[in-house]
Amino acid sequence: MIYFDDIKKSRERIKKYIYNTPLDYSMYLSRSDTNTSVYLKLECQQKLKGFKIRGALSKLASLAEDEKAKGVFAVSSGNHGAGVSYAAKILGGIKAKVYVPETIPMSKLEKIKYYGAEVITVGNNYDEAHAAALEAIKKEDLIFVDPCSDVEVIAGQGTIAMEILETNPDIDTIIAPIGGGGLITGISVAAKHLKPSIKIIGVQTAACPAMKKAMEDRICYTEFPSQPSICDALIGGVGEIPYMMSQQCIDDILIVEEEKIKEAVLFLIEKEKVMAEPAGAVGVAAIMTNYDLFEDRNVAVIISGGNLDYSLLKSIIL
Amino acid sequence: MIYFDDIKKSRERIKKYIYNTPLDYSMYLSRSDTNTSVYLKLECQQKLKGFKIRGALSKLASLAEDEKAKGVFAVSSGNHGAGVSYAAKILGGIKAKVYVPETIPMSKLEKIKYYGAEVITVGNNYDEAHAAALEAIKKEDLIFVDPCSDVEVIAGQGTIAMEILETNPDIDTIIAPIGGGGLITGISVAAKHLKPSIKIIGVQTAACPAMKKAMEDRICYTEFPSQPSICDALIGGVGEIPYMMSQQCIDDILIVEEEKIKEAVLFLIEKEKVMAEPAGAVGVAAIMTNYDLFEDRNVAVIISGGNLDYSLLKSIIL
Repeated sequence: MIYFDDIKKSRERIKKYIYNTPLDYSMYLSRSDTNTSVYLKLECQQKLKGFKIRGALSKLASLAEDEKAKGVFAVSSGNHGAGVSYAAKILGGIKAKVYVPETIPMSKLEKIKYYGAEVITVGNNYDEAHAAALEAIKKEDLIFVDPCSDVEVIAGQGTIAMEILETNPDIDTIIAPIGGGGLITGISVAAKHLKPSIKIIGVQTAACPAMKKAMEDRICYTEFPSQPSICDALIGGVGEIPYMMSQQCIDDILIVEEEKIKEAVLFLIEKEKVMAEPAGAVGVAAIMTNYDLFEDRNVAVIISGGNLDYSLLKSIIL
Repeated sequence: MIYFDDIKKSRERIKKYIYNTPLDYSMYLSRSDTNTSVYLKLECQQKLKGFKIRGALSKLASLAEDEKAKGVFAVSSGNHGAGVSYAAKILGGIKAKVYVPETIPMSKLEKIKYYGAEVITVGNNYDEAHAAALEAIKKEDLIFVDPCSDVEVIAGQGTIAMEILETNPDIDTIIAPIGGGGLITGISVAAKHLKPSIKIIGVQTAACPAMKKAMEDRICYTEFPSQPSICDALIGGVGEIPYMMSQQCIDDILIVEEEKIKEAVLFLIEKEKVMAEPAGAVGVAAIMTNYDLFEDRNVAVIISGGNLDYSLLKSIIL
């Protein structure tokens, strides 16, 4: 379980290392006729262009000295691994190993390597990389930095909600992408503590609606099959802590089609002048396709990452 | 003349309205073999996606009540007008008129209109719009918000340098685009006050090297002919105050070709995941084409605006 106090403490650990990212009013998504105000929480402009650095720093800064001396390992579709690599470097050169699937976009891979982590590429998707990593790492005494089911990691992601409500206390709805579920869980714990009436809406790609199905079936799908998807960061199963807390944390999950996610990426570039990777743009796709749900609401949409692959961008534009 | 004290006071007026934008380390532009560290000051992620809001807020917040009651007018290639329109709205509904040339990109025009300023489109470029506006406005008793030759406007732009040196006191070189010269003048006054040894390098497009020629010829070219250019925000003559202060403020001016500016826009998207308009990317073009000048330097490059026109982006990518 995650408590608000975990998030408050996490914030003290990480705030000097991260940006309090903009909560930008969107003149294009807001509409006066439905009394809908939309704000974009631009974690795509966070250091390394994604929110994952919050959780990674939160975890690594919480380690005891003997744990730091052992070193850490992570499994990642990209942004979490970059966060762990960066955090390991700036917190004094902690040894780090990052397992990534073959599908990792080049820009994410470059960031992981640049900050010094050892990279092991294995498996065709996140779930395969995850399984292979846990097997390979058995004999090594490294600390696991779980991307979505670790108290300190989730607490780090939750700091986003504190920033949102400090910047604009009128926000009454937060829309967040769901992959493993760490982001929405942290955000929800903080937001509902600070403002119990707030609604927390998750978004998943139709290619991999793992949390939606898990909540419906009441089964913790730690692995989940996926259709082909441009949302590399949202593919795979859910985390155990996010699943356990999902009924109290997630008010609703919206599912968006891949084509709508492409439109959202283009909209953000064309109108908002914001670079978001597809996984980071699902919240915008959700609001564009379900606008009636947000009548009379003040909505903060988390744009969770900005590592948009250039070849993908070209293919979307053409 | 502009003094550091003007900039310090300006900052007190505007800091609650603006973002202290990121100074992002660039792992792609930095090179250990030449001991060059490069940081991007991302004013393209400022509110309304450009630095101009600083100067506009600085000016409008400095007005006496009777001046605010009269209303203001501006001439702008886009970002300055958007800043004036936004500032006029949030400072209590000051009446604002903005003259823009026919060449204004759509996204900039939409922002000016959205925040309530009256827009008058006139002339084929900035200099023509400027001349027409000054003629048309003669009979109206409105306060002129000069984009590049007004003490309070320039002081607002100078606040960028205070942020840079607070975030990283090791910065020893700042690269800034030059259009009318307001940005570099404000930055230089603040930076050289805080760190007299700092080098301030201006950049202009080869299509319109107005300040370069003005400094060479020792003539204040308030209008200047331009070749066709994708840098709408850098076209036209120089401001009188920037010209008068240029010898003390500007250590060097680098001229970059339009093709190199396109490459810089693409580099920022592909590698840095940053959306910059061409005028905002000239500093990157300058460093890429003159890398040897920056050996052993810690360089901050001002990415001054992010309102990249979508049709232009498409044409650059294709």
